[in-house]
Amino acid sequence: MKRIGIVAKPDAGAADEVVRRLVRWLGERGVKPVLDKETADLVPDLAPAQARRADVPGQVDAIIVLGGDGTLLSVARAVGDLGLPILGINLGGLGFLTATTLDEMFPALDAFLGGRLIAEERMMLQARIRRGGETVAQCLALNDVVIMKAAMSRIIELSVAVEGQAATAYRADGLIIATPTGSTAYSLSAGGPILFPTMDAVVLTPICSHTLTNRPVVLPGASAIDVTLHSSQEAMCTVDGQVGFALRDQDVVEVRRAPSRIRLARIPHKHFFSVLRTKLKWGER
Amino acid sequence: MKRIGIVAKPDAGAADEVVRRLVRWLGERGVKPVLDKETADLVPDLAPAQARRADVPGQVDAIIVLGGDGTLLSVARAVGDLGLPILGINLGGLGFLTATTLDEMFPALDAFLGGRLIAEERMMLQARIRRGGETVAQCLALNDVVIMKAAMSRIIELSVAVEGQAATAYRADGLIIATPTGSTAYSLSAGGPILFPTMDAVVLTPICSHTLTNRPVVLPGASAIDVTLHSSQEAMCTVDGQVGFALRDQDVVEVRRAPSRIRLARIPHKHFFSVLRTKLKWGER
Amino acid sequence: MKRIGIVAKPDAGAADEVVRRLVRWLGERGVKPVLDKETADLVPDLAPAQARRADVPGQVDAIIVLGGDGTLLSVARAVGDLGLPILGINLGGLGFLTATTLDEMFPALDAFLGGRLIAEERMMLQARIRRGGETVAQCLALNDVVIMKAAMSRIIELSVAVEGQAATAYRADGLIIATPTGSTAYSLSAGGPILFPTMDAVVLTPICSHTLTNRPVVLPGASAIDVTLHSSQEAMCTVDGQVGFALRDQDVVEVRRAPSRIRLARIPHKHFFSVLRTKLKWGER
Amino acid sequence: MKRIGIVAKPDAGAADEVVRRLVRWLGERGVKPVLDKETADLVPDLAPAQARRADVPGQVDAIIVLGGDGTLLSVARAVGDLGLPILGINLGGLGFLTATTLDEMFPALDAFLGGRLIAEERMMLQARIRRGGETVAQCLALNDVVIMKAAMSRIIELSVAVEGQAATAYRADGLIIATPTGSTAYSLSAGGPILFPTMDAVVLTPICSHTLTNRPVVLPGASAIDVTLHSSQEAMCTVDGQVGFALRDQDVVEVRRAPSRIRLARIPHKHFFSVLRTKLKWGER
Repeated sequence: MKRIGIVAKPDAGAADEVVRRLVRWLGERGVKPVLDKETADLVPDLAPAQARRADVPGQVDAIIVLGGDGTLLSVARAVGDLGLPILGINLGGLGFLTATTLDEMFPALDAFLGGRLIAEERMMLQARIRRGGETVAQCLALNDVVIMKAAMSRIIELSVAVEGQAATAYRADGLIIATPTGSTAYSLSAGGPILFPTMDAVVLTPICSHTLTNRPVVLPGASAIDVTLHSSQEAMCTVDGQVGFALRDQDVVEVRRAPSRIRLARIPHKHFFSVLRTKLKWGER
Repeated sequence: MKRIGIVAKPDAGAADEVVRRLVRWLGERGVKPVLDKETADLVPDLAPAQARRADVPGQVDAIIVLGGDGTLLSVARAVGDLGLPILGINLGGLGFLTATTLDEMFPALDAFLGGRLIAEERMMLQARIRRGGETVAQCLALNDVVIMKAAMSRIIELSVAVEGQAATAYRADGLIIATPTGSTAYSLSAGGPILFPTMDAVVLTPICSHTLTNRPVVLPGASAIDVTLHSSQEAMCTVDGQVGFALRDQDVVEVRRAPSRIRLARIPHKHFFSVLRTKLKWGER
Repeated sequence: MKRIGIVAKPDAGAADEVVRRLVRWLGERGVKPVLDKETADLVPDLAPAQARRADVPGQVDAIIVLGGDGTLLSVARAVGDLGLPILGINLGGLGFLTATTLDEMFPALDAFLGGRLIAEERMMLQARIRRGGETVAQCLALNDVVIMKAAMSRIIELSVAVEGQAATAYRADGLIIATPTGSTAYSLSAGGPILFPTMDAVVLTPICSHTLTNRPVVLPGASAIDVTLHSSQEAMCTVDGQVGFALRDQDVVEVRRAPSRIRLARIPHKHFFSVLRTKLKWGER
Repeated sequence: MKRIGIVAKPDAGAADEVVRRLVRWLGERGVKPVLDKETADLVPDLAPAQARRADVPGQVDAIIVLGGDGTLLSVARAVGDLGLPILGINLGGLGFLTATTLDEMFPALDAFLGGRLIAEERMMLQARIRRGGETVAQCLALNDVVIMKAAMSRIIELSVAVEGQAATAYRADGLIIATPTGSTAYSLSAGGPILFPTMDAVVLTPICSHTLTNRPVVLPGASAIDVTLHSSQEAMCTVDGQVGFALRDQDVVEVRRAPSRIRLARIPHKHFFSVLRTKLKWGER
């Protein structure tokens, strides 16, 4: 690894100090850091190489994210199918995607540069909004694609086709289509199951379904899922809780498995169940 | 009963025809109908006595609602503490509040005029929004008071005090404070329990709580419940899903039992569990 | 208070030492302790006044329970309608019914003897098993009455009448009829809501209902609830998880509010929500 | 197909008449029926070829099951890794595994013999009970392996290792380890998600977990799952709700994907979502 991208959450505590130490540490090892613009603004005196966030992935061999899961989600969508490994360092606790803490950063980096970290592959989704036969928006998702009514809207109706075949219909506040990675995020709050993160699967979790028998449904990752909105109420399609599109009656949100997977580096003992137990406060025996 | 108000849902199927028959039927019995303005517009040729919806309750001895539960909710809030009996006729199915069907209308009316219908008393809530010590809005609710984030907002934080004492806090999409009547509406979709409708109780049901142990809590009806928003995200307070107020960080939504109860007339065999079994498709043995 | 009963959980850590200190402390204040037999066996050298657990309540003015919620439940059923105040000291953590910890014992006792503790009244249930018109068993319950299939039995069918009127039917593993006190015990594990403990209400929570729309139902405390078993599968009726009766097909479990309430003493700052937050690990803001 | 096994549920309505017609129909087409013993007893006058249920699969090319899902489950376990196609005809409604109704039987059989039915492959599980290093019982499961306390037992503690690594622990009534096929059976009643039936996955659904954050977890089908009982309470391990073993403290239930899959024949338009909508009473739009 000759060049490494750095993306920090600017308002995270001590982000500037961590970036400074990281840039120095990489320099001492002959690795050239490339910072996203907002991150570079934290350390103007270092005059680092910089690029727009969307452009960082194309210029580096790997990316270090300093922040929380939200920051990593936005980087993952930018990486798309470039296949770069991403290492997430959490600046304020413990995240599902940023399971490495600040204390563990330099040992983890050593292992990362040496190729000794496990790179877990996670599937992503591609959402495409179709309106009258045309694609009006599209976006990658690492966590989830959510179709949801506005706060003052009434219940919306959604119908779901799987592989072109009528599958389910919902009268609900909304519907979450989540990856295994996203199963521990919003979908969990809405009553969805936890999916082991490296699985090739998708879970459909309704939000406040009016039909009480509408349980979460887990489908193979390769399923072609088309969700049609049947409502003139105000509704949105959001991706990873970060990008949003206003929907219209009869819009179809096509959700497919993205062609490539994201690669998340993790330190060996921070396996999924260990993080889960901590985050969900599951008691040890 | 000398004067009876009529409020119809204008776009319900055959509403105009039903109103016409009802006006005639009441006239034949020496009862004067007073129609809300929108309802009067359905039968302009009858030139009926009319008033704004908010003013109808003050001019009559009882009210007949033709439509669904939504129409009855808006009438109940208008009736407020006037204590008039309300009879709800459902124009398109079966509602929890409008459990009398069109087929049963005239026999039910006969019994209603003769005082032979059961008048179930239902508690209502009063919501008051406090901002920096001042009341900026207030409203009655028959079903529920809901505090909810906007579609593109992130999770909001809410703290709840009961009788002035810190009770719970939520990191969630929102919180529903429902009456027993409202327990079969939105609260049920969000995972809340069913409360027997004539109880004196309130249920707090979180919407997509991030904290998985945040279960619905049932409190005595007289509880003083204060919900404070701790978030600068866009959020709303809605009442019965029909009236909405934009909230600001640190706003307090004070929810109290309303001073008076609403009186819903119902035909004897349409008791609560019978309606529940039909609506929830509970199989008979 | 001249005489105080002491009931300890014999196998709780250091129970003998705590009993010894407690007997001495009471003696110094001129209060005569009466120990249940098992408790007396922990301190044979003190030769304390003793009685069978069922007889202790009749001989004292108040009872101190040393142990966990299970011990207190059995004492509550023994107290029945004698109306004695009960103070629960938890020997190994924090219980909903034994919310006073060992550290707080002597200050709490001071206040208890001085009548300065809050005595919360909690409703109890009375369960009566009817078979062919005869009562074959009956029991008080502070937490819950549970009807449940055996491990190797298939699903059982239960029908519920409320006030003599068909209310619901279940095809399920079982049904929990819980008091507000019991709402934080087994009912909570089965998906039931939390009821404020001093309420006059009962919650019916199905266990693994086959019918997915069978949600928990909250009824007024005075409701006459009759549950009929329609199954020749092996099934049990258990009370507070401590007393069990084998049921037969067509047996009716009649559940009524018990005529008197139990009085639980608690230290002022250990109010319900405070205990709940600790037990359910609800984060503070 | 030269020989076809027939297994009927003896007490299903008109089972004898259906078996009689089926035997005749097969005979007219030159196919030899082999009946399991109990089925043969329904039509003694036909003197059919017969075998014990466990031996039928070894003597035929395919099996027809007449009854409900329970009958098919027991046949599936008998078929094990022989790979025979199974066609389930429901004698009294609609099952997930027996989705062909009596009306559709002969057209379905025509297609079945002609190889024109879709044969869906479903994964099975193998459960092995280990006690002190020895295997004391083992069994195949098409639906689920369940570890559950007895009715009068208190909560049991279970720890789960996945791939030899501590994953989760439960204080609960029990734990269901279900296949996708079993996800619509007991697991669904306990709050589990629905898994698309041909997936290679397993779902762990706790029964009445004391720890409220213990959500259902979906794992890859190939996962090595070891469940250890930490309790001297009475507990059972049951398979498909039909076979049971008493467990002891420290017993380990090892659950693995079975080496081969079962093949279920189905008529084309009876796809999974169609059956699901009917069974769960999901409304069509």
